[in-house]
Amino acid sequence: MIRGVLFDLDDTLYNSSSFANRARKEALRAMIDAGLDSTEENAQKVLNKIIDQKGSNYGMHFNDLVKDIMGVHDPKIITMGIITYHNVKFALLRPYSDTIKTLVDLRTMGLKLGILTDGVTIKQWEKLIRLGIHPLFDEVVTSEEFGLGKPNTEFFNYGLKKLKLNPEEVVYVGDRVDRDIIPAKSVGIRTVRILQGKYSSVCDETSDYTIKNISELSNVIKKMI
Amino acid sequence: MIRGVLFDLDDTLYNSSSFANRARKEALRAMIDAGLDSTEENAQKVLNKIIDQKGSNYGMHFNDLVKDIMGVHDPKIITMGIITYHNVKFALLRPYSDTIKTLVDLRTMGLKLGILTDGVTIKQWEKLIRLGIHPLFDEVVTSEEFGLGKPNTEFFNYGLKKLKLNPEEVVYVGDRVDRDIIPAKSVGIRTVRILQGKYSSVCDETSDYTIKNISELSNVIKKMI
Repeated sequence: MIRGVLFDLDDTLYNSSSFANRARKEALRAMIDAGLDSTEENAQKVLNKIIDQKGSNYGMHFNDLVKDIMGVHDPKIITMGIITYHNVKFALLRPYSDTIKTLVDLRTMGLKLGILTDGVTIKQWEKLIRLGIHPLFDEVVTSEEFGLGKPNTEFFNYGLKKLKLNPEEVVYVGDRVDRDIIPAKSVGIRTVRILQGKYSSVCDETSDYTIKNISELSNVIKKMI
Repeated sequence: MIRGVLFDLDDTLYNSSSFANRARKEALRAMIDAGLDSTEENAQKVLNKIIDQKGSNYGMHFNDLVKDIMGVHDPKIITMGIITYHNVKFALLRPYSDTIKTLVDLRTMGLKLGILTDGVTIKQWEKLIRLGIHPLFDEVVTSEEFGLGKPNTEFFNYGLKKLKLNPEEVVYVGDRVDRDIIPAKSVGIRTVRILQGKYSSVCDETSDYTIKNISELSNVIKKMI
């Protein structure tokens, strides 16, 4: 008997990869306008390398970028990048067109809903609030709050505990095989993989169901109940 | 011979105290709407105490507020406060009506202009960029960048060095007697105090000139040249 659904956030409920890329591109243009001595192409290449090395949640991407390209710390150029990144991010941030309807449908089915996401608590909450979907969740659990993130299975057990449900009563929905599907499955949670974002083509032999669009989720869960 | 003017930023070139107060008031309302169990009056009192103890540049005001009032960490309420604070801040942030004209007049007089401000470099640059006045300054110096802030006189000497001017060639403009006027004066810089913001009624026996409005500055400096 399914009683609850736990969701990953980025790329699962909204188009995180695409909007971050567009915001970064505009930030680089603004930095070049402000005096960053580089072509867009080269700046993008340097930035991609920094993101690969430090991860996308690292807070000093633009500081490192300016240092790498110009050899100095230039707060005007860095700040121009940060402001533009945030302006574009907030301008573009929205749920997938079927996210809200799907979440409401699941609640109407009597299911508890939760978010289990890696990231800084305040940043993840900011996304939920700006997306307008935060009132639809009973619990929001972040890796910062718990102290350990995906793919640690204890993090998934912590999510179950917060929802007060057993593994067999819960479905986990996420976009990544390695960090969402495999660890959820290994603690006994059923899994739905959503083919969105930059990991959508990764090979998957683990998930119970695969969907292309969040709109398919209600029907998939109805089959499990 | 006056060749340059160094400015404090907050309350000297824009109405920092007032806009921060209004942004905080709206943030408290949003936090109460989101479940903060308090009256506006009580929340304001608790917040004022935290600001008094930790300073206005402390980054965790709303975290401490929620903890003090509710006894728990509630990221939804904290984030609601942070988002509202920033939204209102950016909506209200603007220079005094005569700031830009005055800065342009001073540049037309052939003077070098600089900012010498306490605070986090990126945050102070963000204000300058959002205020639209950053292209008017030759140098921007922050306490974070230098490693020491006001009223340390070495910080003022560092500002002179960046402008490549001697003390007797420079005027410092600021709103605070203790942190702007007295230390600037003590390294030999002439001083203009602007009577704006929450320290406008503090007694002052040090400044060379006192003005109520930034629009009076060009005439005051013409007298010194």
